[in-house]
This record gives sequence, C-alpha cells and structure tokens, in this order.
Amino acid sequence: MRVVALGGGHGLAAALTAWRRLTRELTAVVTVADDGGSSGRIRREMPVLPPGDLRMALAALAGEHPRTQEVARLLQHRFGGSGVLAGHPVGNLMLTGLTEMHGGDSVRALGVLEELLGAQGRVLPMAEVPLDLVATVASTDPDDPQDTRRIRGQVAIASTPGRVREIRVSPADPPVPDAVLRAIAEADVISLGPGSWYTSVLPHLLVPRLRQALEDSPARVVVVLNLEPQPGETDGFSPEEHLGVLLAHLGGVSLHTVIADAAAVVDRRGLLSAVQGCGAELVLAPVAAPDGAPRHDPARLAAALASMVGAR
Amino acid sequence: MRVVALGGGHGLAAALTAWRRLTRELTAVVTVADDGGSSGRIRREMPVLPPGDLRMALAALAGEHPRTQEVARLLQHRFGGSGVLAGHPVGNLMLTGLTEMHGGDSVRALGVLEELLGAQGRVLPMAEVPLDLVATVASTDPDDPQDTRRIRGQVAIASTPGRVREIRVSPADPPVPDAVLRAIAEADVISLGPGSWYTSVLPHLLVPRLRQALEDSPARVVVVLNLEPQPGETDGFSPEEHLGVLLAHLGGVSLHTVIADAAAVVDRRGLLSAVQGCGAELVLAPVAAPDGAPRHDPARLAAALASMVGAR
Repeated sequence: MRVVALGGGHGLAAALTAWRRLTRELTAVVTVADDGGSSGRIRREMPVLPPGDLRMALAALAGEHPRTQEVARLLQHRFGGSGVLAGHPVGNLMLTGLTEMHGGDSVRALGVLEELLGAQGRVLPMAEVPLDLVATVASTDPDDPQDTRRIRGQVAIASTPGRVREIRVSPADPPVPDAVLRAIAEADVISLGPGSWYTSVLPHLLVPRLRQALEDSPARVVVVLNLEPQPGETDGFSPEEHLGVLLAHLGGVSLHTVIADAAAVVDRRGLLSAVQGCGAELVLAPVAAPDGAPRHDPARLAAALASMVGAR
Repeated sequence: MRVVALGGGHGLAAALTAWRRLTRELTAVVTVADDGGSSGRIRREMPVLPPGDLRMALAALAGEHPRTQEVARLLQHRFGGSGVLAGHPVGNLMLTGLTEMHGGDSVRALGVLEELLGAQGRVLPMAEVPLDLVATVASTDPDDPQDTRRIRGQVAIASTPGRVREIRVSPADPPVPDAVLRAIAEADVISLGPGSWYTSVLPHLLVPRLRQALEDSPARVVVVLNLEPQPGETDGFSPEEHLGVLLAHLGGVSLHTVIADAAAVVDRRGLLSAVQGCGAELVLAPVAAPDGAPRHDPARLAAALASMVGAR
C-alpha cells in the first residue's frame, strides 16, 4: 500500500508514526513555510528550505536498530548553552549542510539522511523553494469585528490574536519536486493532518501544482482532524470547524474519509452532515492519547487508519 | 599490528591515511588544544573539546563505501554564507552535539561517528578536558634577542613572530581517557608527527599521564619529521632542528625510528648523528608528495612505514 502523508510538525510526525505500522511504502510531503525558531534562523542566514519540519519527519521514520535510533536522537538533539548555536537541533544543521554540499538539492540531501536513519519511508519537501505564508486575520476589536489585517510569516500568524480568514503562499506558484508529484500520482492513500491547520495542513492545498496533482490522483484521501484548537490559528475551532476550513480550500480534490476523535467532537450531527455533504465517510474513533494529552496516539491512530483502509 | 598515531590537524590525517593501508588496528590520539577557527568558536560557546582535529582524524579513517565517504564529506563540509554558521564544518557541530547529548562523554560521541563512518580505526582525544598551550616565544627584536614573551593559545602562538623556546599545557596535568592509556600500553607501534610541531606533536609529550604511558609502553616509537618549517612556530627549522626540539621534550620515552624526506634534509650528517645519539635508526625516504607540495604523500609514507615495520 503506497501512502503519502501531507503535513508538518508534530502532527505529521504522529501520522507517520502511525502509518509506518501499516506500510513500508510511505512518503511524507512536508511543509516548508516555517520561519520561526531554528528554521527561521537558518532561513535568514542561508538560501535553503527551513529544515525543522523535514527533520522531524525524518526522525519519525528512523529505523528501530539502536544505531539508527541514535542518529535520530542526534538529529533531534538541540544545542544547549546561550551562544549562537543554542537551540539549533543538530539535524537541522546536518540537513542544511548536506543541501549546501549538494548544490541546493534538498531531495538528495534528504536521501542521504534517510539512508543514515534506515528510514522506513521517504521525506520530501512540498516545494523546491522556501515559502512564506500570508494570512488575512480577523480583528479582535469588538467594535470592529469585520476589520482584518494581513499578516506575513508563520510565526507572526500563529502569534497574532484573531482567527485566520484566508491564507495563501508566497511565491504563489512554487515549483514542486518531481518525486512529490510522482508519489501522489502513484499513491493508494493520501492523508492530510493532523497538525497546525493553517500552517502545516492547508499550505499543501494552496500550492497550485500540488493541488493539481491531488485532484488528478486516484488515491483515497483521508483527513485526520485535530483534537483541539490551536491558539492564534484556530482559536475556538471544533473538529467540525477544522473540516469546514479544509473543505473551503479543497477545490477539486476528492475527500473520501474523515477521522475524528469521538470525544473531541462537539457537534456530531453537524460534522456527519459536513462529511456526508462532500461524499466522504466519517470514522469516529478514540485516536487521542489515553493520558488525556491533546495529541494523537500512534497505535490508536494506526488502528483507525487500518480499519479505514480495510474498509475500502 | 596495533598502531597508535599521535598528532593533530592535516599532519595526523596524512599519517592515518598512510597507516590505514597497513593495519586495521589503528588508534588516533588527537590534540585538543586548538582555539582557532570553528573549534575556537565552539570552545568559547560550550564546555566541550575543540572538535576540529578529532573531526579531521575521523574523516581520514572513513570507510571506502560511497555511503561512508558521503558521511565523511558531510563531516568536512563547511557552511558557506556570512552568518553565524559560516565556516563551521558540519562534523564539528555533529561531534559537539553528540558529546553534549552524551553528557560530555567525547569518547562515546566519537564512537557513534566512527560507526556512521565505518571508520578503519578509532579516534580518541589526548585529554578529557580542553587544553590551552602556553609558549615562551623569542623576541624578533634584533637589539634584544634574549628577550622572550609568554603567549597563551594555539592561534596566538602560531601568529606570533619568533621561534618558540618553550611550551607547556594548561591545565598542567589533565586527565587522559583510559582508552588512550590502554591503546598505548598495548601498541606495537606508536607514531608521532608529521604536523604543527609545537601545537600538534609536542603537546602529547607535555601531558604527564600521556608521557608516562609512552615511557612505559613496549611499542616501537617512530617519528615522522616535517617537510618544511611552519611560520610562527618553527621559522627556519630544518628537519634536524625539528628532531632536536622533540628530543628535548622526550624525557624517558624511547625513540626507535626517525623518518625524514631525503630531499628535505639539509644537514644529513647532523641529523644522522642526532638520531644515532638517541639510539634510533634513520629512514631517509621520498615521502613528500610527488608534485612538490609540502605535504606527505600517503602511499609513499605508507611504504616508508611498512619498510620500517618490516625491518623490526
């Protein structure tokens, strides 16, 4: 079963950790719009893709051998101290160095790290160039609720109060690696989410060549909804509202399955109606971590994905 | 044949490249007194050993498989640009990150990289703590040739005009890794040099526990003399003068063989007399690169080492 998982950050890592239990033919297509933290510092210093989300996806796919797990730990290790290196995960620097060494070819650089990690899948960037997100954010001024502001950059968007009304990427039509387009064309299943909705999940639908490939793909498309809203992006969003935003950006992409955590859904009828309205099936399953933390449990999510795949 | 190669920098890398043709039981014992370049920047930021010389030794021992050669290239790749990362070899950051991750245990961190590199030998630091070199340098004032200055730090010593008269390490009696002491005790052959004489070769003789281990070792000790003087350290030094400085620091360490490039020796009789004076044999061989560059040719140096070993 060929699976392509779209996303970024911890949400994508959770999806990959679940998917790797079900298939060896796994491709992560990772957002490259981060401009914060270590990735932001590297982006401002060198003309490379922000490495952070790519690194996290790589680490999530590391082989189980102690040697490859050690490499994964190294990738994720952040420098301490209070100097110019502090806070950089070593893997961000390794990926950046490899990319530079290969003349800017991130796909090749990722391949080298995949080999070192004995990765159970591939990691690809959603675009060949770094992206900036540009959002229109609603005012939080109660006297003028219709007022909006335009905010540029992932960090700025996440730290601006008020809901995102609209989002786009800059450049508007970035090149997409051939390997991504091929993986999407050949996929049996494509998953979106969970993750920061506006900055990790939706960006894939905002890149024209990527969306065209998704529209053309015969794959089953599954969306894993978030468990809770994210401050600054989706304040107060229920799972069904997450879906609503996604549907508004789907264009001609078919949606086949929506997975939501039963306990996280407030308006079950509304969600079911929205899912059925676009011809998809709803899978309500206990996919949240059993300790109550607002994150997906890999084993539970894998079980939900497996039942969905089996039901095809 | 168990070989221990002492040194640092490019000189040690040349010795290792030669030795690895002759044995698989090879241990590099590397100077940790560098305070310049990337290593100096890292030392000032974090309490770790300067990684540069260790990294170069690791790269020199990388396995021949394309995958391990790719790791070696990554280790040696220096960041471009003009930001805070510029000039750092990626391997310096990997080694530093691994050391930090393992609670300061550099020997363990080096072991991880040895595995990734499929290294044909081990790389160990000569001390468990970073060292500073302190030199007494002769004045270059012709009116006062007896005047001397005390200079602290490898970079400062190398960039101070005037010959080094005396050198010591600080702290004066640093701890030495057990693995180093064991390797020296069990060695069949121990080599010193080539390399920056005062900052890469002599420091090993200035560390009391290391010198004691060398005095106690039954190994054959071979010194590979430099091809040409190094500005700021050994201005105007001939190979025989290099040997003289070494002999002055040998203490109770027995010297068995001295290898010098025939063409680089000025006073052959003086050199022979000095070598024989300490009961050693002199091997004059064409060990310089055939293109005339002032560096040792690995194949030629290996041939000279092989003949010396065979002649034991």
